[in-house]
Amino acid sequence: MLIVKKFGGSSVADKDRIMNVASRIVEDYKAGKKIVVVLSAQGNTTDELFRKAREITDNPSKREMDMLLATGEQQSVAFMAMAIHALGYPAVSLNAFQVNMATTSAYSNARLKDIDAERISMELSRNNIVLVTGFQGINRYEDITTLGRGGSDTTAVALSAALNADKCEIYTDVEGIYTADPRVVKNARKRDEISYDEMLELASLGAKVLHNRSVELAKKYKVKLVVRSSFTRAEGTVVKEESKVEKMIVSGVAADKNIARIAVIGIKDIPGKAFDLFNLLAKSNISVDIILQSIGRDKTKDISFTVAEHNLEETTTLLNDNLDYLLADKIEYEKDVAKVSVVGAGMASNAGVAAKMFEALYDADININMISTSEIKISVLVAENDVNEAVLAIHDHFKLSLK
Amino acid sequence: MLIVKKFGGSSVADKDRIMNVASRIVEDYKAGKKIVVVLSAQGNTTDELFRKAREITDNPSKREMDMLLATGEQQSVAFMAMAIHALGYPAVSLNAFQVNMATTSAYSNARLKDIDAERISMELSRNNIVLVTGFQGINRYEDITTLGRGGSDTTAVALSAALNADKCEIYTDVEGIYTADPRVVKNARKRDEISYDEMLELASLGAKVLHNRSVELAKKYKVKLVVRSSFTRAEGTVVKEESKVEKMIVSGVAADKNIARIAVIGIKDIPGKAFDLFNLLAKSNISVDIILQSIGRDKTKDISFTVAEHNLEETTTLLNDNLDYLLADKIEYEKDVAKVSVVGAGMASNAGVAAKMFEALYDADININMISTSEIKISVLVAENDVNEAVLAIHDHFKLSLK
Repeated sequence: MLIVKKFGGSSVADKDRIMNVASRIVEDYKAGKKIVVVLSAQGNTTDELFRKAREITDNPSKREMDMLLATGEQQSVAFMAMAIHALGYPAVSLNAFQVNMATTSAYSNARLKDIDAERISMELSRNNIVLVTGFQGINRYEDITTLGRGGSDTTAVALSAALNADKCEIYTDVEGIYTADPRVVKNARKRDEISYDEMLELASLGAKVLHNRSVELAKKYKVKLVVRSSFTRAEGTVVKEESKVEKMIVSGVAADKNIARIAVIGIKDIPGKAFDLFNLLAKSNISVDIILQSIGRDKTKDISFTVAEHNLEETTTLLNDNLDYLLADKIEYEKDVAKVSVVGAGMASNAGVAAKMFEALYDADININMISTSEIKISVLVAENDVNEAVLAIHDHFKLSLK
Repeated sequence: MLIVKKFGGSSVADKDRIMNVASRIVEDYKAGKKIVVVLSAQGNTTDELFRKAREITDNPSKREMDMLLATGEQQSVAFMAMAIHALGYPAVSLNAFQVNMATTSAYSNARLKDIDAERISMELSRNNIVLVTGFQGINRYEDITTLGRGGSDTTAVALSAALNADKCEIYTDVEGIYTADPRVVKNARKRDEISYDEMLELASLGAKVLHNRSVELAKKYKVKLVVRSSFTRAEGTVVKEESKVEKMIVSGVAADKNIARIAVIGIKDIPGKAFDLFNLLAKSNISVDIILQSIGRDKTKDISFTVAEHNLEETTTLLNDNLDYLLADKIEYEKDVAKVSVVGAGMASNAGVAAKMFEALYDADININMISTSEIKISVLVAENDVNEAVLAIHDHFKLSLK
């Protein structure tokens, strides 16, 4: 049995946590399993590298930031190998060059294209526990890239697929996937299972436990994901194909505060301008979420959309630089907004879900700014101040704490 | 004109020093020169990584230590690229994988075998300042190795040879090569030029400015070395083929405190046992310096030799484990010793040098433990307490402060 395990930065933050993770790894190894471990950088290492880079320049090149940050995971895997050796077991660390972790060329936000599993398989056949740097890859120029947010999860899933692993365990600081954030909703319930599609919606909606890219990849290659805690022995949540066990109309509520709303005001209403706008953003690798278009005055229109908050500055600068090209009047933005979503595989065939969600928000006196829907989710934009209250109201209204 | 510049860990220790080095690099770039820069890890980074590794285990594997320590240089080159960008000039950082820095397989003490200069040449042709990680390489298993002490100097010289550079500037915290350590001998004089051979003897004798491997390599490929300060604009010392300008019998005095004397007592006096002893050390990559053999009692002999102090523990453990194999009685060692040497190209044809050196030490009442001589140097082992006095006495006796 081959297991890929992924531990994040907080699980390897210091010597004690490294030793704790090492013992958990060794437990499975002693039970006869083949183990590949993907590690993130120690949390404080990444912060420290960022701080030092900002001392030198406000605007470090993305290529050089990737070169710099990739050292963090390399340190983690070396430390973990030492820790496993100290427990008396064989282990070997490998970085992105050594496993030919091929990515697209976009620095700071690359996508994995291909992994050559040969080196890892060889090390496994020598009975080594194999420790692989997460988050990083090599592009076609032979430069180091990083995978952006949730990158180490993606590395773990991609490795699981390449190695045909029996499962991919993602260790986090929570015990699994809940019907809502348990810090906000006290009676939120841990799911035993969840489908890829539900997880995908939850992930992209800010549930923070798993990044959507890693879930997409897991779905594509049918990798059995297990989300569990690195601090407790709880069983965790299995993410797999359509769950037959629990059929809920709405399976969870998610919130995301790290978004901003941008409005492009007074775009000349001629064909192609919306394309120009979103093409411009795509070329800068800026992901856009909810989009709203409204008719303005004098043959103009306004287009509003949301982006991740860390993309706000880049986006407004880019758009302001291109006002003439877009034939638009001005750019406005709003940071204090949040997105609240309900997700559920049973939703598509149940017309009442949207109405029920709006009712919950109306009862709680919360104003809705924008709405976006898909087959299995409904998202609304609310004021950031209202977000916890909105999640509670919805969780309550759908009675998600009851199985 | 192509210049390879090497800066050590103290030259890139913090933001201010990084910016200082960046401006010096840019000065030459603006003057139309092509620049390749080799950097060591920031001094504090290496210390910190060592500390963290020791927290995990007292005895980290050499492979994993190399994996860990190599991140230090990678951080340095990324920071320097950012600093040069901040000054408005193009730069690109490269690590050992990216320049195919092939080494032997010995972790922590590998030797460079080959460098593929293609990537660097391409970056130079794009008018980039190229920043290369020193100290590290890749062995035939595609694992990261480090080159041991003075490794970054070796990287710089090897790159100079591979790129056919016009010169290789080694930036240090001293202004050049002196007739003795200026901190010990106040009137020590800076040399304008020195031959490879003299430098080789000085380097291997603990003059600390350049490591002998790098000088050997420079001699082999006729790389013009310049040793200069990263803190001042002083011209420095040129290391090149036999100097015609200054012909001194004795060109310098060097001291090395980081050595230890080991004695293998009561080795059975049969052929091959000395070979067994030194072969054992060679297989563990332990370099031996001065060797002295004496006749013991009852058909036994004693063999004494010196090793670098950081090799002492490994050496005594190794020898104690092999007492039976060596047919020896016991191992003794002495840490508080130092080596003092005089070096000079004119020495071979001048029989009086040894006598004059011993006279200087005799006048200063300093006892001599072991003696070793070569074509261009004479070394003696003295008590560590006596070392500064010995250097002063010799420097004075040979009137080295006068040109």
